[in-house]
Amino acid sequence: MNDFERRARACQDRLESVDAAAAVLFPSPNLYYASGFHEEPAERHLFLFVPATGDPVFLVPELYASQIRDESWVTDVRTWGDGDDPVAAVETVAEELDLWGRHLLVDDTMWALFTQDLEAALPEATFGLASEVFDDLRLRKDETELDALRRAAEVADQASEEVRKLGSAAIGLTERELAEEVESTLAGMGGDGLAFDVIAGSGPNGAKPHHSHGDREIQRGDPVVLDFGAYVDHYPGDQTRTVVFAGDPPDRFEAVHAIVRDALEAGVAAVEPGVEAQAVDRAAREVIEEAGYGEQFIHRTGHGVGLDVHEPPYIVEGNDLELEPGMVFSVEPGIYLDGEFGVRIEDLIVVTADGCERLNQSPRTWEPL
Amino acid sequence: MNDFERRARACQDRLESVDAAAAVLFPSPNLYYASGFHEEPAERHLFLFVPATGDPVFLVPELYASQIRDESWVTDVRTWGDGDDPVAAVETVAEELDLWGRHLLVDDTMWALFTQDLEAALPEATFGLASEVFDDLRLRKDETELDALRRAAEVADQASEEVRKLGSAAIGLTERELAEEVESTLAGMGGDGLAFDVIAGSGPNGAKPHHSHGDREIQRGDPVVLDFGAYVDHYPGDQTRTVVFAGDPPDRFEAVHAIVRDALEAGVAAVEPGVEAQAVDRAAREVIEEAGYGEQFIHRTGHGVGLDVHEPPYIVEGNDLELEPGMVFSVEPGIYLDGEFGVRIEDLIVVTADGCERLNQSPRTWEPL
Repeated sequence: MNDFERRARACQDRLESVDAAAAVLFPSPNLYYASGFHEEPAERHLFLFVPATGDPVFLVPELYASQIRDESWVTDVRTWGDGDDPVAAVETVAEELDLWGRHLLVDDTMWALFTQDLEAALPEATFGLASEVFDDLRLRKDETELDALRRAAEVADQASEEVRKLGSAAIGLTERELAEEVESTLAGMGGDGLAFDVIAGSGPNGAKPHHSHGDREIQRGDPVVLDFGAYVDHYPGDQTRTVVFAGDPPDRFEAVHAIVRDALEAGVAAVEPGVEAQAVDRAAREVIEEAGYGEQFIHRTGHGVGLDVHEPPYIVEGNDLELEPGMVFSVEPGIYLDGEFGVRIEDLIVVTADGCERLNQSPRTWEPL
Repeated sequence: MNDFERRARACQDRLESVDAAAAVLFPSPNLYYASGFHEEPAERHLFLFVPATGDPVFLVPELYASQIRDESWVTDVRTWGDGDDPVAAVETVAEELDLWGRHLLVDDTMWALFTQDLEAALPEATFGLASEVFDDLRLRKDETELDALRRAAEVADQASEEVRKLGSAAIGLTERELAEEVESTLAGMGGDGLAFDVIAGSGPNGAKPHHSHGDREIQRGDPVVLDFGAYVDHYPGDQTRTVVFAGDPPDRFEAVHAIVRDALEAGVAAVEPGVEAQAVDRAAREVIEEAGYGEQFIHRTGHGVGLDVHEPPYIVEGNDLELEPGMVFSVEPGIYLDGEFGVRIEDLIVVTADGCERLNQSPRTWEPL
């Protein structure tokens, strides 16, 4: 039994225990996790039905059939052609699997385009979310997953060091040009596609936590928030450093950078099995609050990282989930000074039996390398 | 009034005419199209409510507020913090906009995670899809859009020529390594992120139309299907060439390549205003059928391209939509010989007042450049 089948069987056990008749997946991390077949969401009906008992069934556009038979352990692959009605095909599978009027868990990221069709095809069914069974399975990474995450972190680290070596050559580049440099460096290091839009927030743009990159030119002395990662074997990197490529940073910058770095260390130091997720948030936040910047730390301290770059466990006040070995998440405190600059530093962490393993190692300093 | 506001107002006119109270968008091409704010879908509730009358309302996580106020013409931006209940915030906005028990159009790509929350918050409402109003608006591209699409096509063309120059240096690379080369070349040419996973299908892998890339090493004489594109100002490129980097191709290859190329030309020649979308499919398919490979052309001839890399108009049998100036789509016939090789050639096309403009110009030959 390969990794993927083992995971699908574990999903089936949990479906039974929550009294759901099936999980209905579409191209998503859950689908890859359970089948070994990876695809991006698209406008054609492509479903994996995982019933609580029996064998899973793929219902896919004809042009995927050969690929799925090669890549997945699931052998029951039904197809529909570009001229057929996919909803009729759904009805046939639903009848065979006895899904009429039952409780079904659909992929959390399934498009409304498809959920509305499922609702129309199965008007008596009730619908929940597949995360109800998959989140807990995916929380603890197996060795295959940890290995990919370590390699993705290494790619991000190497790219970070490479890009920081630009030094004064980065001055005058637009954020967009810098982001392109990051993207091609990640690809050259073995990254297989960006995990998310590269964030290159220079000067005041760094104070917007989710600004990706724009046409602003990087000036001497600008703090630049660099947050990026690429996939390796389907698992993403995600790493942030706030750097100055050349020149003297603004007045408060050095002090603020040191506070954020201390907050990162405090967050990481708090990680061990049995500790609640919110305790990591509190440990990092306390450092920033005590320094008087609590109001400028406007997001949670971190998020889980696995097949999704944002997934449980969320490192946020109110989350009393107890950490266990194999959980992987970011610790990424930040301080955002509106109109001036932002500072965020982020490492990925694996919970281990006696503490944690830090996946990112590239220098956390701001000075040119 | 900027492009984005003009488009949102056109959306409102159509909402009234289909008797829907509002479109509810989440991070998607529709949201960018109507607001000017671009973001990837993520796990936090971020909605744009576009009521049939009055002004649109953003409901967003606090950390996006400053960015949205900078990037969008929409001035009513409500926020919720990481500790708050976003569903309660949705209920407040829904009450103000008088959405209780009304018909709402949700983004086609909205995640089930959010549609289930909307259904719970508005149990009396009925739900349709935002494409009902957006598809027709987005079908005809305005000049800003055409300009971006032309530049994205140019980036794909330039990258294609650059990568084909590898010649015999490509022999022995894995498909994955070749895909990385394509990715970094696209980024270097000014592409801003891949429009989709690079397809580099060598030898028998080329016979799987949606195979992206694997660990197979490229051999001398291998036909390689190269299908890729990158975004430029939010609009994607999408171009396919089937090439041989070095050596002599398999027996039937030259003949099959010539047939596909003829099919492409026949498809393009059929494009003019007033012609039905399916006529373009028929024109391309007829060439392949007459050559005896009809069974090996296992997908539609093309898809529209705009903010989405796959969007209407679909160039497929059964689609009697009449082509109009400003519509943009791919023409991409293919022949797939299971276990041997595949050939696909793809250009993007804009319908013009008297025919069409071809966006891709890179050589359609298979020989080394």
